[in-house]
Amino acid sequence: MNRVVIIGGGFGGLTCATELRKYAGEITLVDRRNFHLFQPLLYQVATGALSPANIAAPLRSILKYQKNAKTILDEVTGFDLAANEVLLKDGLRLPFDTLVLATGSTHHYFGKDAAWEPHAPGLKTLEDATEIRRKVLSAFERAERDPDIAHRKKHLTFVIVGGGPTGVELAGAIAELARETLRRDFRTIDPADARVILVENSDRVLQAFAEKSSQRAAEALSRIGVELWLNCRVTEITAENVIVDRHGIIEPVPTNCVVWAAGVKANPLGKMLAEAVGGVALDKAGRIAVNPDCTVGNRADLFVIGDLALMKSADGKQLPGVAPVAVQQGQYVAGVLRRRAKGQAAPGPFRYFDKGSMATIGRSRAVLESNGIRLSGFIAWVAWLFIHILYLARFENRVMVLFQWMWNYMTRNRTARLITGERASR
Amino acid sequence: MNRVVIIGGGFGGLTCATELRKYAGEITLVDRRNFHLFQPLLYQVATGALSPANIAAPLRSILKYQKNAKTILDEVTGFDLAANEVLLKDGLRLPFDTLVLATGSTHHYFGKDAAWEPHAPGLKTLEDATEIRRKVLSAFERAERDPDIAHRKKHLTFVIVGGGPTGVELAGAIAELARETLRRDFRTIDPADARVILVENSDRVLQAFAEKSSQRAAEALSRIGVELWLNCRVTEITAENVIVDRHGIIEPVPTNCVVWAAGVKANPLGKMLAEAVGGVALDKAGRIAVNPDCTVGNRADLFVIGDLALMKSADGKQLPGVAPVAVQQGQYVAGVLRRRAKGQAAPGPFRYFDKGSMATIGRSRAVLESNGIRLSGFIAWVAWLFIHILYLARFENRVMVLFQWMWNYMTRNRTARLITGERASR
Repeated sequence: MNRVVIIGGGFGGLTCATELRKYAGEITLVDRRNFHLFQPLLYQVATGALSPANIAAPLRSILKYQKNAKTILDEVTGFDLAANEVLLKDGLRLPFDTLVLATGSTHHYFGKDAAWEPHAPGLKTLEDATEIRRKVLSAFERAERDPDIAHRKKHLTFVIVGGGPTGVELAGAIAELARETLRRDFRTIDPADARVILVENSDRVLQAFAEKSSQRAAEALSRIGVELWLNCRVTEITAENVIVDRHGIIEPVPTNCVVWAAGVKANPLGKMLAEAVGGVALDKAGRIAVNPDCTVGNRADLFVIGDLALMKSADGKQLPGVAPVAVQQGQYVAGVLRRRAKGQAAPGPFRYFDKGSMATIGRSRAVLESNGIRLSGFIAWVAWLFIHILYLARFENRVMVLFQWMWNYMTRNRTARLITGERASR
Repeated sequence: MNRVVIIGGGFGGLTCATELRKYAGEITLVDRRNFHLFQPLLYQVATGALSPANIAAPLRSILKYQKNAKTILDEVTGFDLAANEVLLKDGLRLPFDTLVLATGSTHHYFGKDAAWEPHAPGLKTLEDATEIRRKVLSAFERAERDPDIAHRKKHLTFVIVGGGPTGVELAGAIAELARETLRRDFRTIDPADARVILVENSDRVLQAFAEKSSQRAAEALSRIGVELWLNCRVTEITAENVIVDRHGIIEPVPTNCVVWAAGVKANPLGKMLAEAVGGVALDKAGRIAVNPDCTVGNRADLFVIGDLALMKSADGKQLPGVAPVAVQQGQYVAGVLRRRAKGQAAPGPFRYFDKGSMATIGRSRAVLESNGIRLSGFIAWVAWLFIHILYLARFENRVMVLFQWMWNYMTRNRTARLITGERASR
């Protein structure tokens, strides 16, 4: 029997499932959520430019015509590797011949999870995004009705921790929200007074890019009013303050709105699987060291892909936790399984083909690097838009996202500026 | 001074504010939410056809160019009528020369609020809509993975209480979701097996319409598979069952998904104002009896409009709690204030001009009545679509809603089928 169970409907798991569409076997995709989420655009939801449904596609709907695949909406609670079964929260056991674990990563606050997480949400889920949207928009509202000048200043201070692509894109979008979208919305405050501070503990943003690109990104951020605090470290986050070690000086920044874009750790299922297999190394972030063919330990039937997998590229560098790695690993594993089913020899080890990296800053600026090409500014932004739409084009809401973007671009507006979440009785 | 404080940014309050755009005074609009909500389309959000942002427009954004108006996002906690001040939750006091109360209505479970509300959400807020969407979509998911046939049947039973426009539209949309949108999505269950039961305690749906229209609506509902239980009364709602008195026979209907579309009661601020004024009658639903010019008691500076106001039309019938009444009352009150500011005589009493009523059933059927004209079927649906888009066209997301609708119509899809709400850690 060829029963493939894939856990996680993100970039890795979903790609693996769809690449197996002609596979002579039974594919079961298990996820806690009923949709595939395009995480790179979460910051657009967090700043009111897109709606959650614009960047999420129901898994069932993606797989509806793939007859060999079924979707189960449930949470995995453990593994019984002796019986080759996955344990589900519902109490069911899901037997498999091959298991693909692709549950990705979550936020990591360097050991301060319990203390910092309530004040500094990260940006991994749709709920995170609408929560950040609520916090950002509410901050302007509170400032508008607060007669105290010091309080107002605090309400209008936004701190983003971490200068990777998420941090850069979010900081740019919040600055733009304040300076363009909300410009005429208030009567007491001027939203352009908002301070957007991006704290990065190294000497430049976008570490994964070339220095030139980091510089261009930093210039673009400054131009739209983001304060870049480089070589600075956050030492404490409370409900009222972020304490930053700023070149040796401890500076408290009064704010109610902190977003965490600094660290991720692997989903706990990784550790569970590693322990069940035995003798498998985990790194500090909880990622599983996998073999060159994405299998784990001596089990040829267990694969781990995406953010959860710890793997080095040919030049000895660790593969980054980005969507293209997950997608390519999903394709690779599907290829391995197809070959096995036909009795063909295994392919060579997985090789990551780096097509490049991109980050946007505000409405029409971006930096892009690909195979030695480096672009920045408007052209890079158009390329960014094009590539993202191409990916989303796999799902049916592509047309809507395209229109929404064109619309936002033309009107400089963000129509999804809703403060939701509390159950209101009216 | 001409300080006008309007409480509530719904159809009545917002219309009043925008109609006062040339008013020589200060207008303050207070709402707990930062957006105006187009409630008649909430059922489209509840069934995954539209996103929350498609039917909600930020109040600030609507009023941004109206220089005499400002928006305050806060909750009103009471009135100090001696000082002519509105008390806000923040502790601020908002002085007024004229007060317009337009806070609308909320669900009413005929005295069973505490017991029934947790199991049978109503459909008044965006949170209600996404909660119902979560319940409806989760029901199919649970059925798919439940091996027990009786449980499956229960999961796939949806009960809507109340056969007014909301109940009819919601029942139709859920039936369509099951029979069309989800048709190919599942492997174990057939979504078309879903039972959608609409319980109405009178002898026909859409009581406010002519009998002929009720009949047409009933036919359209039957055609898409909705079970109409007329002359039936819900006697109990628990987590597992709805107990229905079906022509004298007590029938328990096992279900986890009940939606309440039966009764509304006035927002509690109405009672507070009535008590502060003194000697003002309230009806059972908590609505305030207003004078023919929408003022309350002997206070010419206090107006109550919309669902909160109890008013009879010329023929002695009570005005219904629908959007057009609220809109026209908002226009009327704005007219009164403009005349007062110019020292002109007060206009005659408010008269409701009934332009007609509409309700849709499924994707391309509707019933419509207007000035003796009665339409049903596809033509009525096109008219319905047109009128709704015209209204939404006042806000900037008009274009997006139009495209979303066209898209849904062409693809028979509902792209906003997201189960969200629980904070997921992954």
